Order: sequence, then C-alpha cells, then structure tokens
Amino acid sequence: MRTLVIVSHPDIQGSGSQQFLKESLPTTNDVTFHHLEACYPDGVIDIRAEQRLLREHDRIIFQFPFYWYSSPAMLKQWQDEVLTESFAFGSYGKALAGKSFGLVVVIGNRESEYQAGGREGYSFSSLTLPFQAMANKVGMQFLKPLGIFQFQYMDEAAKQQLLIRYQQYLVLADIDSLKEREEWLMQALAATSLTTLPEGSEFIIQAAIEQISQARLELDELHLYLEGM
Amino acid sequence: MRTLVIVSHPDIQGSGSQQFLKESLPTTNDVTFHHLEACYPDGVIDIRAEQRLLREHDRIIFQFPFYWYSSPAMLKQWQDEVLTESFAFGSYGKALAGKSFGLVVVIGNRESEYQAGGREGYSFSSLTLPFQAMANKVGMQFLKPLGIFQFQYMDEAAKQQLLIRYQQYLVLADIDSLKEREEWLMQALAATSLTTLPEGSEFIIQAAIEQISQARLELDELHLYLEGM
Repeated sequence: MRTLVIVSHPDIQGSGSQQFLKESLPTTNDVTFHHLEACYPDGVIDIRAEQRLLREHDRIIFQFPFYWYSSPAMLKQWQDEVLTESFAFGSYGKALAGKSFGLVVVIGNRESEYQAGGREGYSFSSLTLPFQAMANKVGMQFLKPLGIFQFQYMDEAAKQQLLIRYQQYLVLADIDSLKEREEWLMQALAATSLTTLPEGSEFIIQAAIEQISQARLELDELHLYLEGM
Repeated sequence: MRTLVIVSHPDIQGSGSQQFLKESLPTTNDVTFHHLEACYPDGVIDIRAEQRLLREHDRIIFQFPFYWYSSPAMLKQWQDEVLTESFAFGSYGKALAGKSFGLVVVIGNRESEYQAGGREGYSFSSLTLPFQAMANKVGMQFLKPLGIFQFQYMDEAAKQQLLIRYQQYLVLADIDSLKEREEWLMQALAATSLTTLPEGSEFIIQAAIEQISQARLELDELHLYLEGM
C-alpha cells in the first residue's frame, strides 16, 4: 500500500506539530510527503502532476491545522482545481474510487470543547462532514480522522504515543485491526537496535508490551470460547 | 440595518446565477456588494480594510458557489486572515458580536440529493456546520442559509421568487417574520410605477397578493381566538 500525505500549512517551519509529524514519518518508500505551499509558492497548482500523484497512491491523507473548522485555503484550492469531474467523479472520473482517505488535523483547543455545550459547540467528527461528503462523492473509503488536540501541551510520553498512532494511521491497511497493530509493533521492535537507542525511544517497547498483552487477552478469551463449544 | 454581501467566485462574469444575484441586489445604500476576487486579484487581502467594512455593517453575508461542500479558496483565505483573534474572538476580539450572519449558496445539484441515501449523502444544513461554528465562535446570530439549488433549470417565475427571497434575506431584520415580509412587499408595490412595468415584473404583484392573503388568514385566526376567550 502506498500512502500520499498531502500537507497544507502556510508556515510549516514555524509549526512545532507539523515538524514533529514530519520527523515521525515512517522511513519507507511507500509514504510520500507532499507539502502544497512548498511545491506551489506562487499558488499555481500543477493539476496534471497532482492527479498523477493521486493515481500512484492507494491511501490519500489530508494533513493540516484546523483553521475555522476546515483546512487552510491552499488545500481548498487544491480540491477545487485537482478533483475535476473527468478525473474524480461523474461518469468518467473514477481515478480515486476504492482508495482510502484520511484526515490528520492539528487542533489548538481541547477535544472536550468540541461538543454541544462546549466552547466550539460542534463535534470534530461533524465538522469534517464536508470531507466525508467529498470522499463519498469520489468513492474513497473515509477513515476515522486522526485529530491531534493541544499538541503544545503534550508531554514526551503523549508525543511518543502520537508518533505510533500516526505511523499506524499512514501504513496499516486496517487502522483499527488489533492484529495489524500487533504486527506493526513487532516489526518496529525488531528494527530497533538496542545499542543505539535514542533517549525516550524505550517508550515504544513499553507500548509494544501493552499492545501485545491486550492482544493476548483477546486470544485467551477466544480459546476459552472455542473450548466451551 | 446595513448589510455586507461578501461574494467569492473565481469567475463571476461567467456565472449566470451570480450575475442574476448581482442584478437582484436591493437598490439601497444599506447594502454593500463586495466581490473578493475582484478586489484582490493578486490574492493579497487588505486585512484592515476588510475589518473596517465588517465593523460598518450589521449583517454579514457569505455568497458563493458550493465547491466541494464549502466555499471557494479565496473566501477561506479571507476567513483565515481577516478573522483574527484580536478582532473577532477571544477576550478582546468582539467586533462581530451581535451581528447577524447569513449564507447565500449556489448549488448545482438537486436539493433532494442532499440527504441520507441521496447522491451527496449529507444535508445542506449539516454541511454548513463549519460556518455555524464560526458564527458561534465570533458571537454572530446564524441565519437559516439561503440555498439556491439548480439555478440553471429555474424558469422565469422561480427566478422572480428567488429575487424576492434574496432581497428579503439581505434586508429584513427577521427574515422569517410574516409581518416584515408583508411590509417589504407593500413597499415594493408602492415603489412600482405601473406605467413603466418591465416584462415579468407583474409577478411581484402576484407574490404580494399571496403574501398578504397568507397574513390575512393568520390574522383572522387570531381574531377568532381572541373572540373565543
């Protein structure tokens, strides 16, 4: 599976969260990082090149800071110009059908404000409806959005957990599959050289242990069930 | 009441619906038509000028074609740059509080497709949630959006009704008030010179008659109720 991460941020250098995500990208050829404002500083989008990129990938991610409950303007322009009728929808536009589509959204406020009675008043999920409608229109499977709330207040442990969730969001065929997440962690552990462990990375080992014990519990229950039949 | 109509359309000259709306604007000094792409062809928004305009008006309208279930990119850029924390929200940003806010959205598809099971899958109302959240954030009263579906298939009668709805949407303090709509129509009738009636404008008189008889029915019911007390 090849994943295209389309990032929109007018000041990515000044964004701690975007820098963190960039450094957290899986080091595999199967993930393409694509920052729109860097590619098109004059705002003129190469539509053919963008459509080619889309065709070459199986999972499309929109990654951006939540500006007025939506994306920055550059990503909106990209949608309006790249997702043409002959390409993405209508009788002949089927280029995106069958791909999966995810959102990675960095949000400054607390998640609990995004509900009825909260300061923001509406759930994060409901505010992504225009993107759900887009995925529906072009035949892409809409993944549960990955909302990153209050990155600025995350401690090191929370950031390491985010790194794991982010990598899994980009590369797992089924982002909710316990089995896939277990396999992903086993591979991450296997690739970890204990002699060159950077500070803090022991956390991934701790996360792996928790993940595996969770999987083990579920397997044990299944075994009990089978024995009882 | 002063109304600011902020229009975003990358090709307004080529849009029959936008041209129709422009020609339908009430001829009063209280309505300001403000086309963003015409004001800022190089994409550099004069933020101070925009904030001044907003302060000078009591009702703010966003008028645009529905592109990917939202506005064109230019209006998104306008939101991101003009609605700053010191101006529009937060402890010191109260410039928009108490104003009313409306959407005039031109939509190519049938209204019935905007529901569960329809081709678009989501209601027009729910797709405007990001704008509702914006109004909520800055303390503006959110008016029922005016969705204009399939303008291209409207006959002359439908267009004349749209003209009336549009003018009322821009200028009535309470867009749903029967009394206000009745007064608006009476004024429109009074201003109509019968000797210079252009073709088709007799429709406004027909609409006035329907409106007034509707109001009369409601008044009659009230009278009956009062007599029964």
